[in-house]
Amino acid sequence: MTPKDALEIAMKVCESVKSEVLKINSNSCGLIVGIGKNGTPTKMIDAVAEKTALNILREYDVKVITEESGVVGEGDIVVSLDPIDGTFNAVKNIPFFSLSICFSYSYKFKDIFCAYVCNIATDDEYYSINGKSFKNGVRIHVSNVENLENANVLFYYPQKQYPFKRIRILGSASLEICYVADGTFDAFVDIRLKNGRGFLRPFDVCSALFIAKNAGAKVTDHRGRELDDKMLTMDERYTLVVSNKILHDKILKVII
Amino acid sequence: MTPKDALEIAMKVCESVKSEVLKINSNSCGLIVGIGKNGTPTKMIDAVAEKTALNILREYDVKVITEESGVVGEGDIVVSLDPIDGTFNAVKNIPFFSLSICFSYSYKFKDIFCAYVCNIATDDEYYSINGKSFKNGVRIHVSNVENLENANVLFYYPQKQYPFKRIRILGSASLEICYVADGTFDAFVDIRLKNGRGFLRPFDVCSALFIAKNAGAKVTDHRGRELDDKMLTMDERYTLVVSNKILHDKILKVII
Repeated sequence: MTPKDALEIAMKVCESVKSEVLKINSNSCGLIVGIGKNGTPTKMIDAVAEKTALNILREYDVKVITEESGVVGEGDIVVSLDPIDGTFNAVKNIPFFSLSICFSYSYKFKDIFCAYVCNIATDDEYYSINGKSFKNGVRIHVSNVENLENANVLFYYPQKQYPFKRIRILGSASLEICYVADGTFDAFVDIRLKNGRGFLRPFDVCSALFIAKNAGAKVTDHRGRELDDKMLTMDERYTLVVSNKILHDKILKVII
Repeated sequence: MTPKDALEIAMKVCESVKSEVLKINSNSCGLIVGIGKNGTPTKMIDAVAEKTALNILREYDVKVITEESGVVGEGDIVVSLDPIDGTFNAVKNIPFFSLSICFSYSYKFKDIFCAYVCNIATDDEYYSINGKSFKNGVRIHVSNVENLENANVLFYYPQKQYPFKRIRILGSASLEICYVADGTFDAFVDIRLKNGRGFLRPFDVCSALFIAKNAGAKVTDHRGRELDDKMLTMDERYTLVVSNKILHDKILKVII
């Protein structure tokens, strides 16, 4: 499977998920229809989206890691999938939720070779292959904002006063990290801890992180450690600081 | 001018602003074209929206208080106008910004008799007349969530850990307060201070606050004081806690 093959599969999955999700009556999106492998309730929209995505991915030689079903399939390629990132927004009709999928040669973050994130509400597509990242087919890069005072920051969650220009929390981490990749925002920070570990799961953020990296972002945990050894497995957790390299060091100093 | 007359004017203003704003080339939206009466730079989209709105309001017997131009006109009715709330989102193509307008018999918040907020990106209309509030013509009410642990809260800005279920910062205060009015979120909080005063200006929030009040919200500043004596004038500032009555008291206790 080449990176381009993987990208085509990603787009096919997304097209299909979009069309099935839009068929759901908006009052039913939030109905709870089961409990996912990660122990949290599964909403109707998540269940429909994941079933649709898996139906397509089943045709390929891949192992899929996903929120509701755990690990599905037997191939050599590892696929990390979040069919709906930002379920709360989707259920509440806030036009900011996404499908997020990436392909890796192993369970390691550093072996990802194709990533794709699509805002289902607006159809904006972000993806990365061969060391480059794109939005709707156009190359993207992180911003060149270097000072905290000029920085627009996506931040889960602020715990004191910071010298940033603006803070936002939009509710779909993968899309928000893509907003850093294309310079819409200057940084994404997630310092939340749960039982001493990060809060974000691999399928929430790996696709977008690969896109951000190839758009020039520095990507580390909240203590400045690189993510190369991070795994795509169900039990891995992430804290994150994502921004251009100059801003990154300055952010690390003020968030602790 | 009856409340219904005012609502018709508001809708006419919004229709016209929408059509002019959509004509602007998206790369030009953020160009700085002057300095507003409030001392901050005016972006192209704000200037176009405000000029369009004032052109219509000029036909009526009203005094308009607005971000860029200050006070315009000579009528008995006071109009508080924010032609674009969430300029940053508008400029960045994030589908979450609004027009916000209200009509009052005096410069006092308590004399407002009609308020209207429209999400320009999605066309959702919120308004309130005669003690009732509506979204797209359907009556709305605040949520009945009573516990902090179940509360989805819009919060500018968190300064410590809170027991809420979820925190969001979406970037258009007027729309976010309408999200509390219709139960999409359970509370809106803004505890930001600038030189010892609140951060929000009347035209940012008054329209939405009137809508929230008539949808059953309790509306106070961050210390629990009612807003009835608050003014719509340029130099007034607001901190805010907006939610149903039971949650409101609990929020006041944890934000200090």
